[in-house]
Amino acid sequence: MEKYCFGVDLGGTTVKIGLFDTEGTVLEKWEIPTRKENYGGEILPDIAEAIQDKMKERTIVKEEVIGVGIGVPGPVDDAGVVHKAVNLGWGVMNINEVLGGLLQMPVKAGNDANVAALGEMWCGGGKGCHNMVLATLGTGVGGGIIVNGKILTGATGCGGEIGHIHIVDDEPDACGCGNHGCLEQYASATGIVRLASRKLTSVSEDSVLRKGGLSAKAVFDAVKAGDKVACDIAEDFGMYLGKGLAMIASVVNPEVFVLGGGVSKAGEILCGFVSKYYDKYVFHGCKDTQFKLATLGNDAGIYGAAKLVIDGYSA
Amino acid sequence: MEKYCFGVDLGGTTVKIGLFDTEGTVLEKWEIPTRKENYGGEILPDIAEAIQDKMKERTIVKEEVIGVGIGVPGPVDDAGVVHKAVNLGWGVMNINEVLGGLLQMPVKAGNDANVAALGEMWCGGGKGCHNMVLATLGTGVGGGIIVNGKILTGATGCGGEIGHIHIVDDEPDACGCGNHGCLEQYASATGIVRLASRKLTSVSEDSVLRKGGLSAKAVFDAVKAGDKVACDIAEDFGMYLGKGLAMIASVVNPEVFVLGGGVSKAGEILCGFVSKYYDKYVFHGCKDTQFKLATLGNDAGIYGAAKLVIDGYSA
Repeated sequence: MEKYCFGVDLGGTTVKIGLFDTEGTVLEKWEIPTRKENYGGEILPDIAEAIQDKMKERTIVKEEVIGVGIGVPGPVDDAGVVHKAVNLGWGVMNINEVLGGLLQMPVKAGNDANVAALGEMWCGGGKGCHNMVLATLGTGVGGGIIVNGKILTGATGCGGEIGHIHIVDDEPDACGCGNHGCLEQYASATGIVRLASRKLTSVSEDSVLRKGGLSAKAVFDAVKAGDKVACDIAEDFGMYLGKGLAMIASVVNPEVFVLGGGVSKAGEILCGFVSKYYDKYVFHGCKDTQFKLATLGNDAGIYGAAKLVIDGYSA
Repeated sequence: MEKYCFGVDLGGTTVKIGLFDTEGTVLEKWEIPTRKENYGGEILPDIAEAIQDKMKERTIVKEEVIGVGIGVPGPVDDAGVVHKAVNLGWGVMNINEVLGGLLQMPVKAGNDANVAALGEMWCGGGKGCHNMVLATLGTGVGGGIIVNGKILTGATGCGGEIGHIHIVDDEPDACGCGNHGCLEQYASATGIVRLASRKLTSVSEDSVLRKGGLSAKAVFDAVKAGDKVACDIAEDFGMYLGKGLAMIASVVNPEVFVLGGGVSKAGEILCGFVSKYYDKYVFHGCKDTQFKLATLGNDAGIYGAAKLVIDGYSA
């Protein structure tokens, strides 16, 4: 009887691996380093070895394992083909076939941000929903969209690239992608620092933020302490993100927006700033969409990867 | 052997019905009036009778029919429940069950704009694609999104409501939906007339458009005749729609955008104005998305309705 599966979250520095039962309980999780030498040629053999060692250690036989899901930092199509993962040195490769060949087990690969969204739907902030958008507010803004319980991959693996929605017309600074005025320039941790610097330059009021050490965390800590300038910065942030999510709602009409990434550590207060402006800009038929915080943190990837292979291969 | 299906496009004035084979060939199409008395209570019995009469006429037996697909002017969930169709006088009703009960055949209902998108994917401008966005540029801007060959319905049936994406911050006029600055206010036939009126007021140059009879058709006819002011209006239109479609691309990443509705009768020239600004605003991973014109015109609805029931009930 199949009762286990593995979820793998492949990052640029470490590979996180989780052993799950099919109900979503993680039985064990551990990490191995990501060895990037030889154009990343050691990575999949290292992962295969780690999984085989764990099976030996726990005397799990192949027949008890549904398969291995894996989230990868690059665009992955529905057939499991990654189209360049620059952080790993990879070109084009069919991960389902290569890792599946090494393990002689079913393997299902997806993009890491999309896979994290699937994890949050399965066991996290979006639990119980089948139509969900995860907005990951970290150094950049990533995203993953779940439609009817499945990842929306898109034609070239760019489904859910919500950080690069054009949201401001007259932005002088360039985004990492080369465009000007992307959502990521205002709603990421880096973006919040930019908004804060601009606000502190344009107003003369005193603020704890003038003492230096500007960060997204410092801004929201100051908001909680009642700092007026920090509150204005949070309103700006909420306006940009609320407007962006309102646009997304008219396209995919999710039940819930889940906010994750480092910025989401600010807590429930974040949802308030965002939903206020969401309500202002959104189409009336999408007004009831909920806002929730992600709950799985850095484990979202292994959960989603496990769910990916369960959905793909269970009877 | 099942070799036929019916596609129904239910409008506020007439009901279009098509008899199809399962390959997408329409064998016959005809119309009946939409009788709205008794809160629209006659509509589904009328449709059932029209289909049964046609089967008798052609000596088609039930066993030869896959079923009946129907597009409805209102939000329809994946179970076939319409949540109010104000134009018809309908409240909440499960169309699959009611019409299916009358006909004793499988029935599958969807929103009319979404169903039209499915039709254009099956036999029209999006033929051969499985990830597509239809933008219907008529009195308003409607839309339908196809992901992996299926309609994206969304949590409350608002998937693809792309006409109500917020695109302009300082718009004084209200959209029909109550918001200000929706895509529909610039990219619909009505929107183009608004853009034209504003342009003619703000510039002093001569233009054939000053002779009155302003319409979207008049604007694009003047563009084709080389009228400078009309070209500037078309650039404005292309900027708003190109920007809106670029936002949509970062969310659902389609292979193709299909432009339909009355405005699309302007022809290929339209795609040029839109794709120019799309390229400017879009995320680099979505640059290769194609722009095509819808080809099925008013028949898109019956084609899509037929496809809906084929996908839902064929083996």
